[in-house]
Amino acid sequence: MAKIKPRTLSGFMELLPAPQQQMERIMETLRETYSLYGFTPLDTPIIEDAQVLLAKGGGETEKQIYSVSNFNLKGDKDSNLAMRFDLTVPLAKYVAMNYGQLTYPFRRYQIGKVYRGERAQRGRYREFYQADIDIIGDGKLDIANEAEIPSIIYQTFSKLGLKRFQIRVNNRKILNGFYEMMGLSEQSQSVMRTVDKLDKIGPAAVRKLLVEECAVSEQAADEVLTFISIQGTNAEVLTALEAYQGKSQTFDRGLEELTSVTKYLSVFGVPEENFAVDLTIARGLDYYTGTVYETTLLDHPEIGSVCSGGRYDNLAGYYIDKPLPGVGISIGLTRLFYVLEDQKMLNPQMPTAPAEVLVVPMSADQQAYAISVATQLRAQGIRTQLYTEQKKFKAKIQYASKLGIPYAMFLGESEEQENVVALKDLTKGQQVTVPLQEAVETIWEYIAQAEEIKAIVE
Amino acid sequence: MAKIKPRTLSGFMELLPAPQQQMERIMETLRETYSLYGFTPLDTPIIEDAQVLLAKGGGETEKQIYSVSNFNLKGDKDSNLAMRFDLTVPLAKYVAMNYGQLTYPFRRYQIGKVYRGERAQRGRYREFYQADIDIIGDGKLDIANEAEIPSIIYQTFSKLGLKRFQIRVNNRKILNGFYEMMGLSEQSQSVMRTVDKLDKIGPAAVRKLLVEECAVSEQAADEVLTFISIQGTNAEVLTALEAYQGKSQTFDRGLEELTSVTKYLSVFGVPEENFAVDLTIARGLDYYTGTVYETTLLDHPEIGSVCSGGRYDNLAGYYIDKPLPGVGISIGLTRLFYVLEDQKMLNPQMPTAPAEVLVVPMSADQQAYAISVATQLRAQGIRTQLYTEQKKFKAKIQYASKLGIPYAMFLGESEEQENVVALKDLTKGQQVTVPLQEAVETIWEYIAQAEEIKAIVE
Repeated sequence: MAKIKPRTLSGFMELLPAPQQQMERIMETLRETYSLYGFTPLDTPIIEDAQVLLAKGGGETEKQIYSVSNFNLKGDKDSNLAMRFDLTVPLAKYVAMNYGQLTYPFRRYQIGKVYRGERAQRGRYREFYQADIDIIGDGKLDIANEAEIPSIIYQTFSKLGLKRFQIRVNNRKILNGFYEMMGLSEQSQSVMRTVDKLDKIGPAAVRKLLVEECAVSEQAADEVLTFISIQGTNAEVLTALEAYQGKSQTFDRGLEELTSVTKYLSVFGVPEENFAVDLTIARGLDYYTGTVYETTLLDHPEIGSVCSGGRYDNLAGYYIDKPLPGVGISIGLTRLFYVLEDQKMLNPQMPTAPAEVLVVPMSADQQAYAISVATQLRAQGIRTQLYTEQKKFKAKIQYASKLGIPYAMFLGESEEQENVVALKDLTKGQQVTVPLQEAVETIWEYIAQAEEIKAIVE
Repeated sequence: MAKIKPRTLSGFMELLPAPQQQMERIMETLRETYSLYGFTPLDTPIIEDAQVLLAKGGGETEKQIYSVSNFNLKGDKDSNLAMRFDLTVPLAKYVAMNYGQLTYPFRRYQIGKVYRGERAQRGRYREFYQADIDIIGDGKLDIANEAEIPSIIYQTFSKLGLKRFQIRVNNRKILNGFYEMMGLSEQSQSVMRTVDKLDKIGPAAVRKLLVEECAVSEQAADEVLTFISIQGTNAEVLTALEAYQGKSQTFDRGLEELTSVTKYLSVFGVPEENFAVDLTIARGLDYYTGTVYETTLLDHPEIGSVCSGGRYDNLAGYYIDKPLPGVGISIGLTRLFYVLEDQKMLNPQMPTAPAEVLVVPMSADQQAYAISVATQLRAQGIRTQLYTEQKKFKAKIQYASKLGIPYAMFLGESEEQENVVALKDLTKGQQVTVPLQEAVETIWEYIAQAEEIKAIVE
């Protein structure tokens, strides 16, 4: 028969079993942490009505979107279909649709695949996981939520085993207020985009662009550079900002918010070294209105932010006439996974075996005994594989070691007669013949030790 | 601003938070059970190259498939895209692609969404979850695997809380062998399709169709009806089948396999009442070659099979020149969920609250104390929500009770000064003022009790 070459599309993640186990562990850690903070899981369709998805409309998104069509459904009312490109628009749709049935503040997490038709490029994915948390208020939302969100990110990253990361925090009201006092409100978007290039092109080039392309006076450009150069401990930055107080209500409110967020972040247990007030953070999207976040791996600044978000005033304005302020953050999970893999940060000690023990009947005569032993092991919560293939002994051992299964249990005629098992520790190469329950205890000791290796990242 | 009506496409599952928690619990139970049997999780893209996906080609599938296109990627080598319609084809692709890097027998589970452009109809979904387990051999695969697979389904359904279900088992070799001895090999596919209607149209109508549409003689039709009417305990059915032995090698081998599967299923701990040898089970797909399964809810036979599968000889023949026999089973999870919901079988006792405790500062002055308390609760593994909105006391209580959160912790000035918490049991309406650690113990007692309610189904 003529064969079709099996292949996976470029830009689509597909892992071998061992790395997939690592990815699963990351997702489990995220689910557990988000649940600990009282977030409820959501699951929305991957396909939506294109009109709903593109309510906001506009440029690059529309080009990147995947359209979906189907022979059977041509002319059907549901024939204008597209795939979601983020989890925020589906959340907005969900809250607007179910407005009266939800309880506010509504806290949800969602871990799901999103789709973007990006041109092939290293580090760009066409299908990738996002992991989002958002808190949505009905009309109002207290400032404490803007500190809680980054504290969750701190917990999540710490549980994954990451240590050298920093959550950088700013407030859009501070920026907007500052540009207001400078008389630069009109060009504030282009100024912020320019300032955002500071890390890449340096202060001199930023100054040049501000003057030449953003219609900023030489003097104002200097003031902008002075402002975004404010650095130091969080307390020092906040003190420096006090000098600008009293000239713009927006600025004053932003400073008050940033001061609260900084204070609360400490109370949430986030160490000073893991968060920094950073006036260069702006986030491009104009729908952020308060606190904004970016998270960088300190040893890999070149990667940019691995987790970003902020406060917005109006989640679902395209669908519903209710003010729904919220705050949220998104981890690009697929990208984060590949970054950790690339940087050799994934913990090789983390067990990726699909089972703790391989139960091996020595011949077909012990099949029933082996099944009964495996059934007892599973009933006690031990992940067990049964190996019933008629292969040479060596092949059976190789099977277990290839998969990294730590124990094998050999069951021959004498073991069956004496109702015992030959338990081999494949790491140490030691074998003992013991009653099943004793073997179970040995394996449980191993599991307890393996559980200690919680960190996915070294 | 003109609004766009937020809506979710028909045939696409989207749940409110409480039922979503039930769905999550079902998926968690599946993941845990499959892991206990040594299956490794896989995750493959939802979009594949259409040519790869449609390698088998043909009819209804091609009409139901969703094609995907994108503005940016027109003319790109990856521009002929389609969405997966099951998890078997992606598995075949995966195994063929990674043939040399996998260890056999390869045991994987996959829980994922699949897409079919079905015309709108009650009980038909366009996006739905399948939960598949398969064991793939390299060249050979022992018969014990054909008993292990339904034993996993028994465990899974039992853990979900289902009791009155039956896994019905047959063997295609028995059917093929029987039709061979009847001289009906040529029309065996159409005969099997007709016999499959027995439950719906009754024996007389089946007999009529066999004679009139399948070119079966009157006498052979009687023999077919006699054969498929064989009923009784599993031992009785197997004994009755022995009468047909010695006339077809295929039949004899099938009977041997079915006898082994029946014997092993008992050893795997599956009670006789939960599985039945049933000669009417054939499964339409012609790629099944040995044991076949269907699972019915005994109180709802009208629903048909909720979990089906079987043994096949050649998983990936379209992609690779290696014989890859396997056995697998698939649960249509979205459908199962709606069936359980429709039949009011979902356990209303199962907690669906997003947290065990709501921490409520009585005024903004206790915000920091509340954050510190919530942080300590979370550090001890208690799912905690922090309620910092400035609302009336009644609104705060309503928030907790709407979400079904069992405890609230009120923190006023005096509680902060004395470093205690006012813990209210919202179910009983009782309130005590105690040190935090005492409150933690009370909540842990509740959690331990709630954990007992494992069953999702009543």
